[in-house]
Amino acid sequence: MAGLFGGVEGGATHSKAVLLTGDGEVVAEVSGPSTNQWLIGLEQCAERINDMVNKAKEQAGVSVTEPLRSLGLSLSGGEQNAVVTLTECLQSHYPHLSDSYFISTDAAGSIATATAHGGVVLISGTGSNCRLVNPDGSEEGCGGWGHLMGDEGSAYWIAHMGVKTVFDTMDNLEVSPHSIDFLKKAMFDYFKVSDRMGLLTHLYRTFDKSNFAGFCQKIAEGAYQGDTLCHHIFRKAGEVLARHILAVLPKIQLELFQEPMGLPILCVGSVWKSWELLEEGFVSTLAEGRKIQGAFSKFTLLQLTHSSALGGASLGAQFIGHKLPLNYDNTADPFFQHTF
Amino acid sequence: MAGLFGGVEGGATHSKAVLLTGDGEVVAEVSGPSTNQWLIGLEQCAERINDMVNKAKEQAGVSVTEPLRSLGLSLSGGEQNAVVTLTECLQSHYPHLSDSYFISTDAAGSIATATAHGGVVLISGTGSNCRLVNPDGSEEGCGGWGHLMGDEGSAYWIAHMGVKTVFDTMDNLEVSPHSIDFLKKAMFDYFKVSDRMGLLTHLYRTFDKSNFAGFCQKIAEGAYQGDTLCHHIFRKAGEVLARHILAVLPKIQLELFQEPMGLPILCVGSVWKSWELLEEGFVSTLAEGRKIQGAFSKFTLLQLTHSSALGGASLGAQFIGHKLPLNYDNTADPFFQHTF
Repeated sequence: MAGLFGGVEGGATHSKAVLLTGDGEVVAEVSGPSTNQWLIGLEQCAERINDMVNKAKEQAGVSVTEPLRSLGLSLSGGEQNAVVTLTECLQSHYPHLSDSYFISTDAAGSIATATAHGGVVLISGTGSNCRLVNPDGSEEGCGGWGHLMGDEGSAYWIAHMGVKTVFDTMDNLEVSPHSIDFLKKAMFDYFKVSDRMGLLTHLYRTFDKSNFAGFCQKIAEGAYQGDTLCHHIFRKAGEVLARHILAVLPKIQLELFQEPMGLPILCVGSVWKSWELLEEGFVSTLAEGRKIQGAFSKFTLLQLTHSSALGGASLGAQFIGHKLPLNYDNTADPFFQHTF
Repeated sequence: MAGLFGGVEGGATHSKAVLLTGDGEVVAEVSGPSTNQWLIGLEQCAERINDMVNKAKEQAGVSVTEPLRSLGLSLSGGEQNAVVTLTECLQSHYPHLSDSYFISTDAAGSIATATAHGGVVLISGTGSNCRLVNPDGSEEGCGGWGHLMGDEGSAYWIAHMGVKTVFDTMDNLEVSPHSIDFLKKAMFDYFKVSDRMGLLTHLYRTFDKSNFAGFCQKIAEGAYQGDTLCHHIFRKAGEVLARHILAVLPKIQLELFQEPMGLPILCVGSVWKSWELLEEGFVSTLAEGRKIQGAFSKFTLLQLTHSSALGGASLGAQFIGHKLPLNYDNTADPFFQHTF
């Protein structure tokens, strides 16, 4: 079983490594901790990647001294220039790890897991981001600037809009046409405070973005229970998520519209679990896309059913001229399709 | 010179103490460091107040063991319940400081410096806030929730709107109808970065609200040089500042409209230095106030020419039944008046 191809999905909280044979069969799969070099530093990032791949080699029954043919790393934070440094670090510290390296963004790795020819990734988890990966491999982005300058349509944004609506209505600054009763109570309960002053600690002194964003879940529950304001907020989230697609639309290469599924939009992140709440705002806003790009007449929303380490491996193999045959029917699940 | 009345203005960066005779003559004035107990702690806050007042007593030529008749503290952060604790701390640690204490918000202290019967304070510095102080002493507020949940119309908000407009236009997410050329260059220059990615450090890892808000100054310069987008942003700031007044309008007691100057609006903070840029948006938005409150037909914008320690002293004296005669023509400067 000589000549294995490796892939790594590197996230902020956990990572995954896979090894495949040249004809696309997965022969090992290993989990590990965060490999985001911005969080843990370059050296530790390289060490963790090496550890995971070595475990995977053992799982596959090959010697750890036998280099992979290629290792494709799909990393959050992989768009920065420092990828060169990471490659150099891996090569110098771990000469037996792999013969070649290819580092891509997590967006590119995710898309390569779901489709062979590119598409759009629309992330809405704690934060939000949109990346277009064109068939020729070129990328364009919209958003991804964090909660102070972006994150529109993310869990943070939804939670923020909920809290802000309560504050502004109570202040008489911008009065919501919908009752804030449910959300006000839910907010005080979630943050365990009795007034707005108490909430300031959560916003500043002990600010924790994930915890704040967790309030999104309560707004989703409210919407499912029929609360009008919660519904309205998710509709707005659907609209603004769709506006990310409209933003990259002029840069999408024509081929991407011509697939049988229309434009593939890969949806990543927990907010997509509430798709029914987003749908109306999302679809009605995307309908405006016809005016921007006449070829845009159909789209399919997909979610990954396998780790984007697979896509990483595919990109790494492609980098050395080998086409790894992935079974795309198996790697992603189309959960919504719409034709205008 | 027995029976002096004291006042303290306590801010986040500096403080002031004044001593007055019963007929309103200022006999001592002393500056000191921050007395915001949320920043420096209760004990140190009390110690600094005692130090300043003792220096003032020496300046006035009275013994530090002779208590003031009253000490009125106008403190940023003075709306919290902990004012009781501060009073107790002063009484127990410094028994010769004063016979009585009265703690108010900086808003109430500022208003009491400018007028005898209350008014509205509209703060737009790094952050923003609006407080109504009614003739009967009751207070209502709008805003003041910090940069994550408010600060509309503040220097932070103006800087943020500038940066966000550049980001969104470059992302094609929300394209500004005005050219971003000036602002984009000004932004990269001010933050000393070459691209948007470089700015993320200023927004997150090394975030400094004051430094970020300082970019407001550059937007003001752009507006004065005729840049349309900078002008637009200040117009929007004027509008949203006025909306704070509209928000408290229904709670303003009728007497406040009946003064010769109409509704007194005390403007505090450095953004008001660019009043010409705010004026159009501010006045046109306030004009909507007639529909909310028919008695609202005139207003005067004022700025303080003396420390709000004076107003603190006045409130402290009032608390023990003494009316300190302040010369209001001298304590505040009316810089704009408008009749609808």
